[in-house]
Amino acid sequence: MRAANVHSPDTSENAWDGFRPFRALARDAGMTRLRRTALAALPFFAIAGAAAAQGQPDVAALRDAALKDDLAWDITEGLTTEVGPRLAGTEAEKRARDWAVKRLTALGFANVRVEPFDMPVWVRGEEKAEIVSPFPQPLVLAALGNSGATPANGITAEVVGFESFADLQAAPASAVKGKIVFVSHAMKATQDGSGYGPFGTARRQGPSEASRKGAAAIVIRSIGTDYHRNPHTGVQTFAEGVKPIPAAALSLPDAEQLQRILKRGQPVRMKLVLTPRNIGKRQSGNVIAEVPGSDPAAGVVLVACHLDSWDQGTGAIDDAAGCGIVTAAAKRIAEAGVPRRTIRIVWFGAEEVGLFGGLDYRAKRGGEKHAIIAESDFGADRVWKVNSQGPATAKPAIDRLVAALSPLGIVQGSTTRASGSDIGPMAADGMSTIELSQDGTRYFDYHHTPDDTLDKVDPEQLRQNVAAWTAMLAVMAHAPEELASPVRPRN
Amino acid sequence: MRAANVHSPDTSENAWDGFRPFRALARDAGMTRLRRTALAALPFFAIAGAAAAQGQPDVAALRDAALKDDLAWDITEGLTTEVGPRLAGTEAEKRARDWAVKRLTALGFANVRVEPFDMPVWVRGEEKAEIVSPFPQPLVLAALGNSGATPANGITAEVVGFESFADLQAAPASAVKGKIVFVSHAMKATQDGSGYGPFGTARRQGPSEASRKGAAAIVIRSIGTDYHRNPHTGVQTFAEGVKPIPAAALSLPDAEQLQRILKRGQPVRMKLVLTPRNIGKRQSGNVIAEVPGSDPAAGVVLVACHLDSWDQGTGAIDDAAGCGIVTAAAKRIAEAGVPRRTIRIVWFGAEEVGLFGGLDYRAKRGGEKHAIIAESDFGADRVWKVNSQGPATAKPAIDRLVAALSPLGIVQGSTTRASGSDIGPMAADGMSTIELSQDGTRYFDYHHTPDDTLDKVDPEQLRQNVAAWTAMLAVMAHAPEELASPVRPRN
Repeated sequence: MRAANVHSPDTSENAWDGFRPFRALARDAGMTRLRRTALAALPFFAIAGAAAAQGQPDVAALRDAALKDDLAWDITEGLTTEVGPRLAGTEAEKRARDWAVKRLTALGFANVRVEPFDMPVWVRGEEKAEIVSPFPQPLVLAALGNSGATPANGITAEVVGFESFADLQAAPASAVKGKIVFVSHAMKATQDGSGYGPFGTARRQGPSEASRKGAAAIVIRSIGTDYHRNPHTGVQTFAEGVKPIPAAALSLPDAEQLQRILKRGQPVRMKLVLTPRNIGKRQSGNVIAEVPGSDPAAGVVLVACHLDSWDQGTGAIDDAAGCGIVTAAAKRIAEAGVPRRTIRIVWFGAEEVGLFGGLDYRAKRGGEKHAIIAESDFGADRVWKVNSQGPATAKPAIDRLVAALSPLGIVQGSTTRASGSDIGPMAADGMSTIELSQDGTRYFDYHHTPDDTLDKVDPEQLRQNVAAWTAMLAVMAHAPEELASPVRPRN
Repeated sequence: MRAANVHSPDTSENAWDGFRPFRALARDAGMTRLRRTALAALPFFAIAGAAAAQGQPDVAALRDAALKDDLAWDITEGLTTEVGPRLAGTEAEKRARDWAVKRLTALGFANVRVEPFDMPVWVRGEEKAEIVSPFPQPLVLAALGNSGATPANGITAEVVGFESFADLQAAPASAVKGKIVFVSHAMKATQDGSGYGPFGTARRQGPSEASRKGAAAIVIRSIGTDYHRNPHTGVQTFAEGVKPIPAAALSLPDAEQLQRILKRGQPVRMKLVLTPRNIGKRQSGNVIAEVPGSDPAAGVVLVACHLDSWDQGTGAIDDAAGCGIVTAAAKRIAEAGVPRRTIRIVWFGAEEVGLFGGLDYRAKRGGEKHAIIAESDFGADRVWKVNSQGPATAKPAIDRLVAALSPLGIVQGSTTRASGSDIGPMAADGMSTIELSQDGTRYFDYHHTPDDTLDKVDPEQLRQNVAAWTAMLAVMAHAPEELASPVRPRN
């Protein structure tokens, strides 16, 4: 069936009415050469390219060929090995940008460039905790982004425990003043990652709330789901006018140990040494590369990931894999012929520490016509659901996409709401968005920990991602319909 | 069937010929009171006790009651929470001994005491590693026991990689001199833990071998099977006359990262900071408690575990759980009536750093008559096999034990070889030994890492262990046969 489609594209199940031949393709010397070659003698991939050159991308064939993809792995392996951790605004992130420019250029993408911006940089220092009494022992923790610092020799104070952020909110300041606040909670793994929003409040708002009530410091149970001694860091920002206090996350084994100790009912004293620093503004940047389309008026298809990582892991699932996935898919579409729409790959900088890359892009380019925006930033496990938002005119293309994704085991989710992290503000502005939702069941086992390393990436599931993204681009970059939402952010 | 046995013990499937009534029991007021009470009104446990008092321990009933045990968990939870890490020879191990004496006394055991001994103490210092070139990034490692130290500001040298200890052995000194040796290897998880012996050579002998060849330092792939950034420490001892060098283990993700970097083919330079110290001789000790038996001439049944732990985890599976298991089983036998043989519980000190507790016990008490020795020190997962060694006279008892363990899913293994760690030298001397082998499939995921914490203990599997040990003690402490081997160590 697939081979028949390649040779007789008009009979393809995945063909659609009104698909326009691309005049630009006729001018492509490579494609012209392909037509002069006996198709049967060509590798499959070149055949798919020839099919596209005849004005008919074979979505199913491109999708299935992508199930053998190695490029996403190569990018993930290369970035995590040859750069490793790459905290936003540091020299390591600069090395990552250089690596990205070199790699994207070597892959043959057009308009490869860095769009720089400045952002404030916070760096981790020493971090130690111990129970002083009644049961002396060390605890493992990691400072949260923008944590305040203790003196070099630390602070010692009594611990007051709360089972949730809501309990901390409800507590009188007198219960907290001068103490080390501890917030535990019951986040469990979910496929769609929906626990991260509500339980993440302890990290995002806990430090400000504790500071407002006069706490000496705050330690939270990591916003994570694994039982390893690898705490989950993550950004938090003290609210306007709130004094920064030391703020850190305990690993789950340590958090439960502290809970057990508190339950013994004796006063618990903790010593805390945290010496992070704000080092001022530094340069970060977005790395951009393109597959030029034949119809500039059709708007760009933006496919995104982020290049920076937290400082303790090598950022394999967060988010080297995302960069591998979107880039491998774009490369496949480029090799299959010139798409109608320009595909713009953006490896955002400084996502982890406050979406600085996404916001910079939105400020500079949010006014350009974007047909579709999409981002891969939820690990490397398989895509299981597709959400979308866009105008009614995009519906036929969405329907074709849903059909093309079904053989990969992907179900349709929302048709009115899709988002992402760096692209989140633009999605909230109303831009047409596709969200290829990855299985997040084990994502929060590794997220923002030293454990985010290459071995957590399953090559087979990574390939399924590339297949899904390839199908998405094959449909959306070529779709004859108007995909762009009339609502666009002002810049 | 079981109830019938209780009321008519002579018909029990588990009864055996020649079983002697215990005259001592007649003097036990509690037992006498029990006989005057309507058995049907008593809780099951008291009934089992009454059965034993009538000279007939119901092995199956005791075993099955132990499947509801909570004591092993309480001991494991208590020791890991209220003491936490307890490195041999430190103040923490002293607190652990105090905790043990208090707990064993409260449980009603007899002759609770500490037998102290001195041993040399090595303590961890700072430990950091980073690739300096070609791809700068930190690596996570942990010093091995008795590691030498670098200067405070570290050393930087080129890395030379070997895939196995044998490859290091085969290498000329010229390939190693002045370099940081790296040994990777392919240890995989096994149910019986049999990979630990051969692959552990890299840790036990690698440092001496590297030092002999003039290496500046050695880092090995952790002797472990998990992909978390928690390196596996463990003891090694430099051979006589060999200069101590810095020696550490990389976590598996870090070891594979280093392998990938080395495979790029450029010279790899590593900076290493390791500042452990030898602090001289300190006191450790074995904690001993007993269930006195009625027949001193029958020899003691020794059930053992170790109290010390490595310094980074809380020693839950290694070996608080072992202490919980053997103690809970002994308590159940004590509650069921006075056994023929004295059951001696030993929580050994200073096992991790060189079996000092076991060797001290052997020197002091190895000349006493031991009917059977057994040790629980391989985690908290279920017992799946029973190995034994002993004289022909013990065979009927072994056969009854095998039959009693079968309903727990336990198979018979060797009948000529059984061992343990602290009891290993005495087993090698030829003492009669029972080895209740635990499933080690995931043991080396946590062994000797910060990840050895309470959450790794599965309460249901822990209870199965207690049931197996209870059955073992019910058979062996009461067995009428001669169990002791004529071979005994000299002391």
